[in-house]
Amino acid sequence: MTDAARLERRIHELAQIGRTDDPAREIYATAVSRLGLSAEEQRARDLVTSWCAPHGATARRDPAANLYLRFPGADPHAPVVLVGSHLDSVPMGGRFDGALGVCCAVEAVVSLVESGARFARPVEVVGWADEEGARFGYGLFGSAAAFGRLRVDPERVRDKGGTSIAEALRALGESGDLAGAMRDPKGIRAYLELHIEQGPRLERAGAPLGVVSDIVGIFHGLVMVRGEQNHAGATVMGERHDALVAASHMIIALERIASSVPDAVATVGEITVKPGAKNVIPGECTFSLDIRAPKQESIDLVLERFKAEANEIFRKSLREWGLRPLQSVAVTPLDEDQRDLLWKSAMSVGVNAPTLVSGAGHDAQNPSLAGVPTGMIFVRSTGGSHTPTEFAATADAALGAKALEIAIRELATA
Amino acid sequence: MTDAARLERRIHELAQIGRTDDPAREIYATAVSRLGLSAEEQRARDLVTSWCAPHGATARRDPAANLYLRFPGADPHAPVVLVGSHLDSVPMGGRFDGALGVCCAVEAVVSLVESGARFARPVEVVGWADEEGARFGYGLFGSAAAFGRLRVDPERVRDKGGTSIAEALRALGESGDLAGAMRDPKGIRAYLELHIEQGPRLERAGAPLGVVSDIVGIFHGLVMVRGEQNHAGATVMGERHDALVAASHMIIALERIASSVPDAVATVGEITVKPGAKNVIPGECTFSLDIRAPKQESIDLVLERFKAEANEIFRKSLREWGLRPLQSVAVTPLDEDQRDLLWKSAMSVGVNAPTLVSGAGHDAQNPSLAGVPTGMIFVRSTGGSHTPTEFAATADAALGAKALEIAIRELATA
Repeated sequence: MTDAARLERRIHELAQIGRTDDPAREIYATAVSRLGLSAEEQRARDLVTSWCAPHGATARRDPAANLYLRFPGADPHAPVVLVGSHLDSVPMGGRFDGALGVCCAVEAVVSLVESGARFARPVEVVGWADEEGARFGYGLFGSAAAFGRLRVDPERVRDKGGTSIAEALRALGESGDLAGAMRDPKGIRAYLELHIEQGPRLERAGAPLGVVSDIVGIFHGLVMVRGEQNHAGATVMGERHDALVAASHMIIALERIASSVPDAVATVGEITVKPGAKNVIPGECTFSLDIRAPKQESIDLVLERFKAEANEIFRKSLREWGLRPLQSVAVTPLDEDQRDLLWKSAMSVGVNAPTLVSGAGHDAQNPSLAGVPTGMIFVRSTGGSHTPTEFAATADAALGAKALEIAIRELATA
Repeated sequence: MTDAARLERRIHELAQIGRTDDPAREIYATAVSRLGLSAEEQRARDLVTSWCAPHGATARRDPAANLYLRFPGADPHAPVVLVGSHLDSVPMGGRFDGALGVCCAVEAVVSLVESGARFARPVEVVGWADEEGARFGYGLFGSAAAFGRLRVDPERVRDKGGTSIAEALRALGESGDLAGAMRDPKGIRAYLELHIEQGPRLERAGAPLGVVSDIVGIFHGLVMVRGEQNHAGATVMGERHDALVAASHMIIALERIASSVPDAVATVGEITVKPGAKNVIPGECTFSLDIRAPKQESIDLVLERFKAEANEIFRKSLREWGLRPLQSVAVTPLDEDQRDLLWKSAMSVGVNAPTLVSGAGHDAQNPSLAGVPTGMIFVRSTGGSHTPTEFAATADAALGAKALEIAIRELATA
């Protein structure tokens, strides 16, 4: 039986690793900064191991710093049931993003073991490394390494301090040879992940749990605007080619366009101007572009309309603009069988779970795109996401763990 | 007689100090980075001294690192004629901003001396220190110190490397005690300054010279927008409180408002967002405000309309905004007698000089506000300002030096 108090205690315990409350910001919530491939993430792996080992789990870390806790099954060679989430956070993030999925996976599997369930196949709890990509700018790192989807050279990608991914891994005692992290998708019966929703839809619907049908595709790009740098006092308004004013028109256009395409979202999260002095008209402006939608056509549509409006903004201007695509993540439909299983499992704990599209990327994309039958369950969360105020109530988390337990029992004992 | 070739040679010679051409930027012009209170600015003072000493000038540096080159007059106690400009530049600036005024002052006075003119009163060429404020963020530094208008503690204001103004002065061999830089305004008959226009009006008018009637007032402030930081993927468009989108509306409103108020200009030259990650909706945005006009009422009008439009933008929003005033520089009308003298002097060299308002701040503001009869002459400049492409033709510069020579003769020999 899922032990809600134990689950709550463990969420709290895990949140102490990397805890970075900032009293000056007057946030009455636990802030967590547990970056991927850091010493803090390593301590989180040790803590989770200490929860599972007493229940017969064998711990293994792979060369990408992913943690696997394997609970034995009758047939040690049968494809395993894999369940978990990630252990890292963004800087000044919250207690639940990633962490809740690992805590609930542990609670579900340990509850099954405690209840005397006999696994026909091994069950593994996984704690993925560096999902957020906050330090090296490359998200879903650990799960990408495990499913052969890593498009990055670990020796060359470096953090702001000049440390490469490979160096960070070696500092944690790993070989840095990521080929050794690869798993055979055929060796995995199913992958299940529980995660906070990171959006307000479950809260609005009054539902503690949701089942994910698809994970959105993402387009990341960089927009560069070139205007004419000039003196802020001596250049009359009609003679200006201000790169920031042009960028402002583009940012507003992007928001309007994304609002008009159902299910699409678009965000400018980074912006810089050159030369960046208060008495100089910006000659250059660079900003990031993040476009997401559950259908590739919608992403393409937002991008095309944005380009068209940008060209219109610049049509009669001496200014120029360009777009550099950085990364595209494909739309990921999840497995229908797992979706049904999770929906029924939620129903068993009294929750009629709505089906949702995930607007955030998740580790689940990597096994799913590699052919592993993959399912995701969302837990209602309030107070935003990637911030110390993100919050999932223990009652909701416990319902999620219980639904997960039922689904794992179905997959592992049959 | 003004020697145009000598003037051209000296402009070139001075531009070698702090020369920082960047071949990667493909700018086929001389870039100059000669920051205020730097070793380069000091070398510029030494060079200008070497031009004047052979003609009987005595050099003096004051505790604010201003350079005075005094040419004797019949009455050593009579109020002096002061003429010059500043010797520093912005980073990656051009050859003419400030430097041209010093070179032309030297050329004008030396020409008079060479022609055998007898000064009734002393004539001083001045090279002001740190007009741009690029390093310490405080412009018009040297002239402010000379006229008791310094509103800064030299021990506390520091550059990015942690060096204070006083430490920088001591490294140049000055005492750092700025009280010793004060001059008695009554001891100055008149202050004349030649400067490039830093705008396109003379070029448009086909006029090589212009006479300045007023220097604009400036309001500098910082706008802070607080929205709601949230996940870029999981937050639907209708639920966002994006600080950057709100800031974009404000930036566009500011441009429209400034364009509607005659003679006013407004610029946003700096902008930052927090947390500044491409997958996070900005929760905070901060940007600078630079508003200028030749009438204080116009500055106030732009500011009031901006506040009203901003309040309207935020009226139905959960977002908040605030404005922190940083610095206000009063509108400075220049002396009518000096204006007439410079206009007649320009006429003597064949130029019908238009009267202009200066949109840029200048050292001339400080003696003028202290009660010194002050005049300014602008030389036509193309290719912008505060950039390596700024350009004043030798023929135009020589006309300016010649007009200056005529005005100085009028003031110093009478």
